[in-house]
Amino acid sequence: MDTVIPEEPDGALVTGRSERGDALRKRHGRTMDAATIHVYQDVGASRGNYLVDVDGNVLLDVYGHIASLPLGYGHPSWSEALRAGDYDWALAHRPALGVAPPAPWVDLVERAYLSVAPSGLDRLLLVGSGSEAVENAIKLAFLAKVGAVRGTAAGLSDALAAMANQQELPNRLGIASFEGGFHGRTLGSLSATRSRPLHKLDFPAFAWPVLPFPALRFPLDTFAAENAASEERALAAAEALFRQGTCAGVIVEPIQGEGGDRHASPSFFQQLRTLARTYGVLFLVDEVQTGGGATGTFWAHEAWGLADPPDFVVFSKKLQLGGVFFASTHAPSSSYRIFQTWLGDPFRAAQWDVCWRVIQHERLMEQVVRVGRALGQELERLVERWPRHLSSPRGAGTFRAVDCRDTAHRDTVVARARAVGLEIGGSGERSLRFRPALVFGRRHAEEAVGLLEAAVASAS
Amino acid sequence: MDTVIPEEPDGALVTGRSERGDALRKRHGRTMDAATIHVYQDVGASRGNYLVDVDGNVLLDVYGHIASLPLGYGHPSWSEALRAGDYDWALAHRPALGVAPPAPWVDLVERAYLSVAPSGLDRLLLVGSGSEAVENAIKLAFLAKVGAVRGTAAGLSDALAAMANQQELPNRLGIASFEGGFHGRTLGSLSATRSRPLHKLDFPAFAWPVLPFPALRFPLDTFAAENAASEERALAAAEALFRQGTCAGVIVEPIQGEGGDRHASPSFFQQLRTLARTYGVLFLVDEVQTGGGATGTFWAHEAWGLADPPDFVVFSKKLQLGGVFFASTHAPSSSYRIFQTWLGDPFRAAQWDVCWRVIQHERLMEQVVRVGRALGQELERLVERWPRHLSSPRGAGTFRAVDCRDTAHRDTVVARARAVGLEIGGSGERSLRFRPALVFGRRHAEEAVGLLEAAVASAS
Repeated sequence: MDTVIPEEPDGALVTGRSERGDALRKRHGRTMDAATIHVYQDVGASRGNYLVDVDGNVLLDVYGHIASLPLGYGHPSWSEALRAGDYDWALAHRPALGVAPPAPWVDLVERAYLSVAPSGLDRLLLVGSGSEAVENAIKLAFLAKVGAVRGTAAGLSDALAAMANQQELPNRLGIASFEGGFHGRTLGSLSATRSRPLHKLDFPAFAWPVLPFPALRFPLDTFAAENAASEERALAAAEALFRQGTCAGVIVEPIQGEGGDRHASPSFFQQLRTLARTYGVLFLVDEVQTGGGATGTFWAHEAWGLADPPDFVVFSKKLQLGGVFFASTHAPSSSYRIFQTWLGDPFRAAQWDVCWRVIQHERLMEQVVRVGRALGQELERLVERWPRHLSSPRGAGTFRAVDCRDTAHRDTVVARARAVGLEIGGSGERSLRFRPALVFGRRHAEEAVGLLEAAVASAS
Repeated sequence: MDTVIPEEPDGALVTGRSERGDALRKRHGRTMDAATIHVYQDVGASRGNYLVDVDGNVLLDVYGHIASLPLGYGHPSWSEALRAGDYDWALAHRPALGVAPPAPWVDLVERAYLSVAPSGLDRLLLVGSGSEAVENAIKLAFLAKVGAVRGTAAGLSDALAAMANQQELPNRLGIASFEGGFHGRTLGSLSATRSRPLHKLDFPAFAWPVLPFPALRFPLDTFAAENAASEERALAAAEALFRQGTCAGVIVEPIQGEGGDRHASPSFFQQLRTLARTYGVLFLVDEVQTGGGATGTFWAHEAWGLADPPDFVVFSKKLQLGGVFFASTHAPSSSYRIFQTWLGDPFRAAQWDVCWRVIQHERLMEQVVRVGRALGQELERLVERWPRHLSSPRGAGTFRAVDCRDTAHRDTVVARARAVGLEIGGSGERSLRFRPALVFGRRHAEEAVGLLEAAVASAS
């Protein structure tokens, strides 16, 4: 039985009104970029899986604020916790958590974050966002790799070179990433991002190497031989690169969540991990979009069955703060090498604390598996009904995608979907992505596919 | 008359107990870096300028969570606003503010942030932290500069080069920064940071140029000729560099707040701005630490009397979120060039909204000027009493510093200060920095200098 959120609407309802939203967008656009905004939200009216906009339109939300909404809207557990005063300490001034954290912070971090630590990784760094988390994972990888290659403590010449941005070793080493990968937009993380020119054009980038990604074709049984060959080629390219000794690390998403929901097999990731270990390349898994339960396991990489854990696992989004899990062996040898003013936010950590309690109490991970399977079947049937328009239904848990004909078609479908009451997002060149909250139920899956079908029909 | 915070302690009170803090640190240190932590805070007991730790020690706080505490602890206006439900919408789910912002977000941004926009800059980008703000200001500068140099829209070859991290133009251009400058720790912002090897060692960096900083000697009238010569040399170096045409931008702090509280004159900044304009170099002012009123003007760069505003002003810390103000002419020509999932946080923006209202209502900017002048005089007298140990009292508003003999002496004084009840921080090689909240009053200034004197005496 799916979880029930009190007062959740029965379904999407489009009034067709947009005056208030239009007026807000016009005003907002005078000072900030408002062109990216889908809707201005009525937070009080939104409930469960339904986002209500300021004009009263009720949208079934399968985009979830770009995959960052764990419990949907207005979950009573959060407002009850606030009312009970459980987190009054976390609502006070914003603290520098590396200088003078509130005492309950230690408990909170253990309960809300360390309890979800990936197997084998017992150290944690918290920061503000996914980009910051990736930046810091890259920095931790450089600390580990440069230290190992140099073999001795840094000397005066290293310090002088550092101040001049001219350190030979770190500037020669790089972070390998995969075609289609998205790891963030700050200049370090952006150097690993390989999704679209829009993200990279006109910005400087480190001369780091890029690897082909398998990008499995679906259905998997039809393309088994082709996919195996594609994974072999990618692994051969990785091995040839790693052998050169110029990689500090390699970063990979379990599913390329911005670059088109592209997949690889558990076997591919196992072999990639082994190659990285063999050649002394740190293995970074970017779970910013996949982490937090939507793929059916808390971390998507759990599905790979690795014997040897990743060196770094990066998260953000559903966990409400950015962060990195890593093994104690990779902890910096001295303080302040990795640091920033805030190092997280107790308020958003408190929110995740409640989310994680609800996820366990309401068995939402099991629901994701169950509903995800149903959503997958619904999407397969939808594609069978629209074979000239849709293709390649795929995914894990409720983290799913389907392809449109091309970019223009996909963009039209996204717009039409919103017009019939479905908030959905694009991914990559021509995919639609499902990133619902973990309270997404069977009835929402059926409604979502029905609305998507209406959108596809109206776009044809 | 200084602002009064109800129930603020009469003064610092050191119990000498540390068992609870020690136990927390030991436990915390098993999974996170706890060695940097000064104290574990009792948030409920902390009030005004006094930080109370979990062992009941009452510290007068002039460090302010690394300059990020606008109103001190437990200001009643914030708890009243929370109780009144004014910001319930901002306490709900964490939204992707570029996708589906709560409707009141538009109002809040106008009231809390645009109302403090530096003169001449009417566009705003909000992000999560100072590092992210600097990264994005650098990206905006590259968009402006690369677009101007190329003169035409990007073509297919530019797009292909971007995906390979091999764009000739942005990779040839750089961001100039100043010796001693601190602009953040993500790899782009860190390439502009020039404070200490600790921040940069073993990390890759863009081959961007560094300029000498005047680093005025104090007292200014004693060193007038030397300082003028130092500023001339720095300006000549900047002009020689800008003339080469390889700078997209130059970034500078009004006071080097991490690199030793080093200053330059308004005339220096005026001339630097003019040089940047002359040679087509974007002018970025990093007010992460100085912004928000502590120097006696809301933005420290207001004191320069620029005829021509900066191109980008970066903030964070006291304003509770990172962000960039810029002129409309520098707005990206298309959406999603500058973007991220969260683009700020309505909860922390709400907190700044209340702070800014209180700052105006209680005339805290005037208090900063008045108390800052008194603090400056107290520090000058302190240095006169300890001429062999302390030197160079300097600063603006309550944003002040004084030098110790050397690093070891400074570190000892910081530790002794904490032992007598003063939470103060270091800056650069041998400086002590004052970064109190804006509610810092005359009596706190006197107490702080008294405690500092006790620390200096005990360290001698």
